[in-house]
Amino acid sequence: MKHPSRRQFFKTAGLASTGALALGAGCSNAKSSPHTEAFVQAWNQPVLRRGLFSDPIVIESIDLLKRDDQYFVRARSKDGTIGMALTNRQLMNSLYPMFLIRIAPFFIGKDARDLDTLVQGVFTVNLNYKWQGAPFWMCVAWLEFAILDLMGKRIGQPVGALLGDRFRDKTSIYYANGDRKSPPENVVEQLKALIAQSGARAVKFKLGARMRYTEASNARDLAIIPLVREELGDHTTLYVDSNSSFDAPTAIRMGRELQKYGYDFFEEPVRFDDYEGTKVVADSLDIPIAGGEQESSQYRFQWLIEKDAVQIPQPDLLFFGGLIRSIRVARMAKLMGKKVVPHMSGFGLGILYVLHYASVVTNSNEFQEFKGDKDGIPYIVVDTGKPLESINGEIGIPKAPGLGVEFDPDYLSAAKVVQR
Amino acid sequence: MKHPSRRQFFKTAGLASTGALALGAGCSNAKSSPHTEAFVQAWNQPVLRRGLFSDPIVIESIDLLKRDDQYFVRARSKDGTIGMALTNRQLMNSLYPMFLIRIAPFFIGKDARDLDTLVQGVFTVNLNYKWQGAPFWMCVAWLEFAILDLMGKRIGQPVGALLGDRFRDKTSIYYANGDRKSPPENVVEQLKALIAQSGARAVKFKLGARMRYTEASNARDLAIIPLVREELGDHTTLYVDSNSSFDAPTAIRMGRELQKYGYDFFEEPVRFDDYEGTKVVADSLDIPIAGGEQESSQYRFQWLIEKDAVQIPQPDLLFFGGLIRSIRVARMAKLMGKKVVPHMSGFGLGILYVLHYASVVTNSNEFQEFKGDKDGIPYIVVDTGKPLESINGEIGIPKAPGLGVEFDPDYLSAAKVVQR
Repeated sequence: MKHPSRRQFFKTAGLASTGALALGAGCSNAKSSPHTEAFVQAWNQPVLRRGLFSDPIVIESIDLLKRDDQYFVRARSKDGTIGMALTNRQLMNSLYPMFLIRIAPFFIGKDARDLDTLVQGVFTVNLNYKWQGAPFWMCVAWLEFAILDLMGKRIGQPVGALLGDRFRDKTSIYYANGDRKSPPENVVEQLKALIAQSGARAVKFKLGARMRYTEASNARDLAIIPLVREELGDHTTLYVDSNSSFDAPTAIRMGRELQKYGYDFFEEPVRFDDYEGTKVVADSLDIPIAGGEQESSQYRFQWLIEKDAVQIPQPDLLFFGGLIRSIRVARMAKLMGKKVVPHMSGFGLGILYVLHYASVVTNSNEFQEFKGDKDGIPYIVVDTGKPLESINGEIGIPKAPGLGVEFDPDYLSAAKVVQR
Repeated sequence: MKHPSRRQFFKTAGLASTGALALGAGCSNAKSSPHTEAFVQAWNQPVLRRGLFSDPIVIESIDLLKRDDQYFVRARSKDGTIGMALTNRQLMNSLYPMFLIRIAPFFIGKDARDLDTLVQGVFTVNLNYKWQGAPFWMCVAWLEFAILDLMGKRIGQPVGALLGDRFRDKTSIYYANGDRKSPPENVVEQLKALIAQSGARAVKFKLGARMRYTEASNARDLAIIPLVREELGDHTTLYVDSNSSFDAPTAIRMGRELQKYGYDFFEEPVRFDDYEGTKVVADSLDIPIAGGEQESSQYRFQWLIEKDAVQIPQPDLLFFGGLIRSIRVARMAKLMGKKVVPHMSGFGLGILYVLHYASVVTNSNEFQEFKGDKDGIPYIVVDTGKPLESINGEIGIPKAPGLGVEFDPDYLSAAKVVQR
């Protein structure tokens, strides 16, 4: 059974006990910056390895393609190289004018080698910063993925290699289950089936009633916490996610149960934007608190990390605006000896982007979130000729150029360009 | 010359020196709620005066109408009453699918008397909370305005009277100037012209370079701060807005200049989402810091208010999701003896919504933001037969039912319903 105390967790994560923690000390002296200089420096370091590219890669066109209810972003450079990224259909259907009016035009004619600054520039141009939030940054993220795909294809490198040193070719996954309605015994059966099918050594399941709790949901939670441990055994790593369900006292009560049964993290215990409340919960428990998936602000993520309100920052690669920005979060997390567990939205190809992230972010978690393929997307991984799959609890990280996947050309041939 | 110290400001705003401030004390004891109960209570009190309506008002249809590049929201109840609200054209053009897919359908068939809970419900339904941010809440706000217009027309009351006791029939305005490029002398001429044309006794102008500062912008700022005071005299109330331009040390330097020349507030001194930085600036200065226009989270606005990071909270009636939610912010502000200055986006009919807000929010500022009519919108105020205008620095608050305005029927007759 794993039940690291907060201190053990930090030790495992390689935190120098005096050095790194001191960075987290509050700084309310008006004469110095309100932010520890190290966090700002970590954020500001270049991410894209510009030196890999000797010539400009001028972005000539960006199109949004649609077939059925699936949307693809296609970026093309002046020399004819093409990059493609699949979006999330049930999100892009509400976002396409924002993408076409406020985001895509800014990138046309620009040099893709400046992607670090372009991703920042699109936020400040035309008052776009007032659009801060997941919808805006999702659009930027999908475009960034398409451009990185293009750049990788141009030089024959996988996307990860453009952003850092690839240190693993595969990663373990945890399988996430989303069922809040079935009785505990049924959820246990589902988890066992997911483990049998994927070989996963780690799973996550839901607590609470999503954004609220009831007497019934509390009773269910108090039953399912020990039951899952008992049924899945001490060798399984267990995570839970309450999706903002609790107030602080109830979260602390649940957290103590989770500690008793050796759970490894507790995600979004209280309202996702109640950061003081999150910190109160974290300060009261030993189990690491995971959070940040709804966050799209550099400064607020810094707050979560620097104040130790979350022990496991969870940038969502879409909601936070792509791989480059999410790597910056990992760098801030590293200053505090924290591991990141990138959050993954269901649908679309979220896991593909998580894999490339995990291939170069050395403080990304051992287990990456996996939710299976809900969409039946017509694609293959170039390396294997098959869709991504978990074998013995691990997924191989594509090595082929760019994102390393290919969409069915027959399917794409009937896709139409979406007009503003 | 007005130059209230922080303490004088609180005194003016009617803060009991011991009672109300004590509410702001930090609460990091895990055994109690992380939030002062009074703030949660202030937020949760009903806003809409349900008792004014004896029968259900079932919302039968919601349409988005478009003519040229203007969009109108039209709500119709089962009995045939119609409510209308103009949106902001350069925002709605990127938002209409979000409005039509994620927001409008939730309200169909519902009783408008439940508007308080509907506005909350649309945020939690279908994972909409992941869309937190100005774009989502703007859509909710425009729909709320249309529904309130409908409700007011149904019982022959102006919108304000549905939400509180109307305590003023007109309000003073401050004229906001947005010119960052012209030399100081030219801005002074512009301000004088705005004052001459509107009779305003208060003005606001820009500092910094919007989201950044340069040596040149600093030099300009240090010249314009004394010049405007000198040219407009001690009888004019002066505000400035830096739009997130500075870091904390530079903001504090500017703030000291502003204090020297008796300015009355300093808006968004540092990055709008850098709340620790905002607090550092506020704690170092006597001039009240205004902020919060980009905020759309209840919890984060509470933080800004409770931690005294801003002395003047500025909910944007659009970005924060409408009149009901922005009245809740004013109630939280009142606990700390703070006045609110609702932020107003340019274009559209922002001032109309600000007027109704100011008619019932007793701790709203003496001067409301006004930016003139940039759009030439084809409407009249029913009371006067003319568009809203500032006379002797004051604007009358419509008394006619609903929002109290009428759009040109000829103009509207050619508008088309926007399809999903």
